[in-house]
Amino acid sequence: MEERKVRVAITQGDTNGVGWEVILRAFEDPDMFELCTPIVYGSPKVATYHRKALNIETPFSIISSADEAKDGRLNLLACMDDDVKVELGQPSSEAGQAALKALDRSMDDYQQQLFDVLVTAPINKSTIQSDSFHYTGHTEYLEAKAGDGNKALMILLNDELRVALVTTHIAIRDLSEAITKPRIVEKATILHQALKRDFRISNPRIAVLALNPHAGDGGLLGTEEQEVIIPAIAELEQQGIQAFGPYPADGFFGSHQYQAFDAVLAMYHDQGLAPLKTIASDGVNVTAGIPLVRTSPAHGTAFDIAGQGRASADSMRHAIYMAIDIWRNRQTYDQPLANPLPKLYHEKRDDSEKVRFAIPKSKTANPQ
Amino acid sequence: MEERKVRVAITQGDTNGVGWEVILRAFEDPDMFELCTPIVYGSPKVATYHRKALNIETPFSIISSADEAKDGRLNLLACMDDDVKVELGQPSSEAGQAALKALDRSMDDYQQQLFDVLVTAPINKSTIQSDSFHYTGHTEYLEAKAGDGNKALMILLNDELRVALVTTHIAIRDLSEAITKPRIVEKATILHQALKRDFRISNPRIAVLALNPHAGDGGLLGTEEQEVIIPAIAELEQQGIQAFGPYPADGFFGSHQYQAFDAVLAMYHDQGLAPLKTIASDGVNVTAGIPLVRTSPAHGTAFDIAGQGRASADSMRHAIYMAIDIWRNRQTYDQPLANPLPKLYHEKRDDSEKVRFAIPKSKTANPQ
Repeated sequence: MEERKVRVAITQGDTNGVGWEVILRAFEDPDMFELCTPIVYGSPKVATYHRKALNIETPFSIISSADEAKDGRLNLLACMDDDVKVELGQPSSEAGQAALKALDRSMDDYQQQLFDVLVTAPINKSTIQSDSFHYTGHTEYLEAKAGDGNKALMILLNDELRVALVTTHIAIRDLSEAITKPRIVEKATILHQALKRDFRISNPRIAVLALNPHAGDGGLLGTEEQEVIIPAIAELEQQGIQAFGPYPADGFFGSHQYQAFDAVLAMYHDQGLAPLKTIASDGVNVTAGIPLVRTSPAHGTAFDIAGQGRASADSMRHAIYMAIDIWRNRQTYDQPLANPLPKLYHEKRDDSEKVRFAIPKSKTANPQ
Repeated sequence: MEERKVRVAITQGDTNGVGWEVILRAFEDPDMFELCTPIVYGSPKVATYHRKALNIETPFSIISSADEAKDGRLNLLACMDDDVKVELGQPSSEAGQAALKALDRSMDDYQQQLFDVLVTAPINKSTIQSDSFHYTGHTEYLEAKAGDGNKALMILLNDELRVALVTTHIAIRDLSEAITKPRIVEKATILHQALKRDFRISNPRIAVLALNPHAGDGGLLGTEEQEVIIPAIAELEQQGIQAFGPYPADGFFGSHQYQAFDAVLAMYHDQGLAPLKTIASDGVNVTAGIPLVRTSPAHGTAFDIAGQGRASADSMRHAIYMAIDIWRNRQTYDQPLANPLPKLYHEKRDDSEKVRFAIPKSKTANPQ
């Protein structure tokens, strides 16, 4: 479809974690270069360290600018000159800053359209903090840097289900106040649009979870369901979005009700992610809602197994596939909407529901 | 071991839910009467209604006092004279009061030692509320009625894992304040004792979950881990209880870490129960910590499928088995401790670690 391969930027993440291990492992198989042209943002010295320590044979080519990237090889864009001391499995501010440099450089290149999609290796959210990084995670950072005024939505998915989060990296203490009707409507609307455009589901069904245990048991265990979540679902229905709920999280997952929906909108991090990861652990994290296509493996830095050769690259590989899929889906979704021909309305009735819905009422009632 | 069969009291629960269906189904198989002598607390008219509506053949014998219960049959203790209107799948205060009458009667009989263990069918926590029931669930009610001053602990379990909850039926808004060091220590201590006495695990390992996402990410996403949970774990260790953590819930379940522990202590309802039910849905709820042995199926009233013949009785059956197991385990645990003979200490060194630990130091140092 496209003339050249999809350019996948990959940031190295925390240099003391499993990031480099899963990146190098993911590109062990040369077939990967048939799918995409990777550009890894990181430190060549750190890459070499991990490559030797783990005895991985994946070769890479060092470049100094993203436009030097070539097909068929692992391009490594050197983002930092200084030595970075690798302390496997240890959180250190040096490793945090190395992660940040790679991220910042990728954002510069994104502005210059030097790549198509971004895949991020995991960071340590504590050590990366600095004057220029005061976010609670990638999602929040990218919303600010590449959001173009749009709100980001964190979606995690695996082969069984997709879970989006109304709140992401927030303390439980602050949770109740953060669950507002406008925020639920906003997140569900982004999710709805992402399911259509990024995943090509024509009329998606969304399950909305409750905040409190037993969905509040009629107000006995919290009132957010009555006061916030149910009104939000009503508003979504009015907007033509198929939203259902609120469902109590334990029964919803326990009785496999999620299988009847295209996505689940959870109120908070652990509510959505603990069941999701229980169902299948090699998930993918997608940042929906912003123009940049960004995915990442669902796992963290995994300091406990860093440098031991025990990390699975499945999740990283899935993240790369997913980024490419979303990039292509967006193109095929946007293409027919880009410049619609009016005569289409009458010739092909079921070509696209968007097109059909866009027919002016007068025309339908009184055809020429 | 015992001269007579274990007497299992079963309360009917909400009369509009699946309670009667799973009770009658559980005793369809006559082999069940080899294990125990059931006494169901409920309304004969309601039982007959469900029996006919669902076409279940299980016969029952109506009695008016628990000491009339006979082995080999389903004894139904008539707790209410008045007609109870059954509205399948509808929450109604009539159904709530019918559930409460059965519970209250069972508590009277428990005080008179007319049965050994209690299994409760699900109630609707909203409709059961009245002047005499102002609890958020069975666990809280039983702690007050049959706790004898002891604190109750809710444990849910299936074939894969056991999960206990620091807080049970509480709104998310009130969660942070409810997570205190004394409460965690108290719940973990009850859990430790229950694992030893009710489940006969000699030196149990307990995993303690974090409250906040990513276990607070070093204080960035909440401080309860540093200020409350980690100090609580340290205190438990000092008391000789093997407690580990705090673990972030999503990674803990996702990487199957729970398999390395005898039980998981979750901070709140959905955090523990959503993953547990995801792993296996036919769990059992055990109220630990109180003298009364009480279990229940882990499911709720399931109004959505009430009266349709679709409810599985597996969970009810497991609840009955589990109650009997715990009752027997407590006997074999208490027996050797009840009246220890001093000479045992010298003849059999490894008979029981409790016995061994109880040896006075002077005796060990200077045997006769």
